Amino acid sequence: MKVRVTVSLKEGVLDPQGKAIGHALHVLEFPEVKEVRVGKVIELDVDGSDAAAVEARATEMAKQLLANEVIEDFAVEVVK
Amino acid sequence: MKVRVTVSLKEGVLDPQGKAIGHALHVLEFPEVKEVRVGKVIELDVDGSDAAAVEARATEMAKQLLANEVIEDFAVEVVK
Repeated sequence: MKVRVTVSLKEGVLDPQGKAIGHALHVLEFPEVKEVRVGKVIELDVDGSDAAAVEARATEMAKQLLANEVIEDFAVEVVK
Repeated sequence: MKVRVTVSLKEGVLDPQGKAIGHALHVLEFPEVKEVRVGKVIELDVDGSDAAAVEARATEMAKQLLANEVIEDFAVEVVK
């Protein structure tokens, strides 16, 4: 089964990478860009056929490794 | 308007970050994990109200900066 875990910085947490991309986009003449936030998408291919069980395990993986819950939020989506 | 650009490695391109996460998940006793692929999600807040125009500009931003089209694919999604 495929599971997608999207990890993003929490609201209010400074995003230096986003700031750098925003500045670069302005230099490349995209003045309409007001803010840029960068996150991760982690696609997992796992054994298993029960979507609920797979989602619970992926949530556990996110809590233990994939996301730093102090500064990041995550969302788990069973794709198929 | 909010636009989400998802950048992911092309099929067949080695993903060392994904390999490292996969190994770490096995060490953390998640043996069901077969493969891990890591990508980026770039959320842009841009001026503009015409979704089609905003999508076209975001596609141009992805081509020029956000994605390396030699090894990465990207998808643009106007969120609201």
